Amino acid sequence: MGLVVKKFGGTSVADVERIRNVARRVVKEYDRGNDVVVILSAMAGVTDRLIQMARQVTDTPDKRELDVLLATGEQTTAALLAMLLKAMDYPAVSLLGFQAEVRTDTAFGNARILNIGTHRIRDLLKNRHIVVVAGFQGCDAQGNITTLGRGGSDTSAVAIAAALCADVCEIFTDVDGVYTADPNICKKARKLPRISYDEMLEMAGLGAKVLQIRSVEFAKKYNVPVHVRSSFKEEEGTMVVNADADMESVVVTGVTSNKNEARITLKQVPDQPGIAAKILTPIGEAGIVVDSIIQNPHSGGKTDLTFTVPKADYRQAVEISEAVGGEIGAQAVLGDENIAKVSITGVGMRSHSGVAAQMFSALARENINIMMITTSEIRISCVIEEKYAELAVRALHSAFGLDQEDS
Amino acid sequence: MGLVVKKFGGTSVADVERIRNVARRVVKEYDRGNDVVVILSAMAGVTDRLIQMARQVTDTPDKRELDVLLATGEQTTAALLAMLLKAMDYPAVSLLGFQAEVRTDTAFGNARILNIGTHRIRDLLKNRHIVVVAGFQGCDAQGNITTLGRGGSDTSAVAIAAALCADVCEIFTDVDGVYTADPNICKKARKLPRISYDEMLEMAGLGAKVLQIRSVEFAKKYNVPVHVRSSFKEEEGTMVVNADADMESVVVTGVTSNKNEARITLKQVPDQPGIAAKILTPIGEAGIVVDSIIQNPHSGGKTDLTFTVPKADYRQAVEISEAVGGEIGAQAVLGDENIAKVSITGVGMRSHSGVAAQMFSALARENINIMMITTSEIRISCVIEEKYAELAVRALHSAFGLDQEDS
Repeated sequence: MGLVVKKFGGTSVADVERIRNVARRVVKEYDRGNDVVVILSAMAGVTDRLIQMARQVTDTPDKRELDVLLATGEQTTAALLAMLLKAMDYPAVSLLGFQAEVRTDTAFGNARILNIGTHRIRDLLKNRHIVVVAGFQGCDAQGNITTLGRGGSDTSAVAIAAALCADVCEIFTDVDGVYTADPNICKKARKLPRISYDEMLEMAGLGAKVLQIRSVEFAKKYNVPVHVRSSFKEEEGTMVVNADADMESVVVTGVTSNKNEARITLKQVPDQPGIAAKILTPIGEAGIVVDSIIQNPHSGGKTDLTFTVPKADYRQAVEISEAVGGEIGAQAVLGDENIAKVSITGVGMRSHSGVAAQMFSALARENINIMMITTSEIRISCVIEEKYAELAVRALHSAFGLDQEDS
Repeated sequence: MGLVVKKFGGTSVADVERIRNVARRVVKEYDRGNDVVVILSAMAGVTDRLIQMARQVTDTPDKRELDVLLATGEQTTAALLAMLLKAMDYPAVSLLGFQAEVRTDTAFGNARILNIGTHRIRDLLKNRHIVVVAGFQGCDAQGNITTLGRGGSDTSAVAIAAALCADVCEIFTDVDGVYTADPNICKKARKLPRISYDEMLEMAGLGAKVLQIRSVEFAKKYNVPVHVRSSFKEEEGTMVVNADADMESVVVTGVTSNKNEARITLKQVPDQPGIAAKILTPIGEAGIVVDSIIQNPHSGGKTDLTFTVPKADYRQAVEISEAVGGEIGAQAVLGDENIAKVSITGVGMRSHSGVAAQMFSALARENINIMMITTSEIRISCVIEEKYAELAVRALHSAFGLDQEDS
């Protein structure tokens, strides 16, 4: 007998018919003798519709009140599933964030979970209830409703699984697992049976939109085994777990690409200590997140500073750069929105050398020019021209032996 | 400086434009220097749509879970209004039932308010916040969400007004007050400036659908002045207050009619003690509410027993009556769905005699036959043929001097 936390995303509860499908999967687990806690998202599209409704009222909805409004989405699906389970003669009960004691800070719209009082859930499980928890929501110390930010239901699920010491946290979604590359780009991509938390973190941050990044951090911190799998198929998906020796024998686990960034270069700025800070401080103060940064020294005490920002913030970042560039005597500010970042990720990199060289050669063979390079312990990313993104992913996928063998 | 509780019904918050209108009325009150607590219903039609959604899941939705679902309706409007007020630079905050500490029993779908912890509302008012409370909902001792039944937002408003000792509880609705008769039936009906709780209770129970009956009971019990007025006009409506000498000088305050009942007669049943109980007990056990009951003795130890039931329960009541009638040897069971009940109500009846005779004469002048008569201390009702209902209302309205004088 185990304890299984199952989280179903928006497309999995998009209408009453799909909620019936969820109910079938839930009772199947229950009938195996396991205790089951279900975490639900709002129906697909509902959160966006609620935001639209708020925008009809005002362009800048108060964050506390927006959370009160958004919380109705998950409240609706939780009530409907519990209702359906009861109608099927299973003991079920819905709990909202405050009832499940999901206590958060007061950062409305992007709250962090502080702790989860498992008292009520445990009591219900002891009496063999199926507990259906509205995801995405919690409440602060004053009893205000908070929400956890986009994709927050993943975080709800992993946090509740951690608090209950669940045997597994299953994330049901519309993809059937984590792949070595995006199957839409790379036909030879393979589903990974297992991936480490660290690899998942790097890949989640790089545009493999399978799991919300904070949920993976949570899972890693509390060592919660996460099983990413399809709502619509029975087959196993991908287990996200701690790295082991087996995983480290593989150099590269996955290849990802990201077209959401733009590049800005300040040409020939004085090569002095503190110059990068002078440029990047006002960018940061404007709330713009800078990703890669490189500095190329020139002769004559000058240097080029290049960095990337999200495309949505590109115009504003250029304006700020031009203002600062004028002050510090930069020769010019150049920008490029047509870039992509391709990355290889793998815990095996730690113990293998020459991986970067292998990556650069693979790109060179396709005549793809590398504009910038950034690395972490288990990832290497190259900024390239946007039009080569898909070609680069396929080339790297082959070069690191990830292609599916024809059967 | 006073404290005003304002309740807006579903048609008053039916869309964002109407919520803007509500906001305007609220800030006008606030700008006068008064403290304001606002109670909101769900947008018109939303509660019905949520019930429809539940019925897609199951024909018999679990009552606890249905309450969780229905509570989203008022949560939505409360969040939207608070958001709008904040956008208008007024300090506002929404409170759900559990946050406003509206504590109820556990009768899901039809819960009764036990008490209201005013701590949080008072703190907010002290800091000159406008407090927007989601109506219709509360929570029980275990923190389960409950709802108060149809029209429950009126009860929320009056109960909160009572708990806060508010100066007045204003009920904004789509009619502009309580009339001496339904203006759709009787063109000469006048808006009453004042009406007593007791009269309102009799009239609410008789089909003048202005205020939920439980809210009036609450208002009477705690002596809360209730002001029924239009959301769409500025003019004063009707004050519902304790009866005073002034009111008692008027014999009849209003005339109402009700076509929602049907009549059942058991002919020639034995005239023995306990026979009425024998017939009416199984009706009551089936959850059917019997209204008027009369018994006409015959010769030979026989009697006719007649009673009225809601039209919706008529078929079932006839079946039960036929079964019981067979057992006790009734001669026949007769039924009539084409009846109406017309009533005159007024606290002045207590101190005036001959009111009933005056009523019967007025009906007789129109050749309207009276089938049954029931009375309370401040009301006389006659069951008549349905087709005469409107004529009877107009005749009684004239006979008791209620007609609007032509100006």
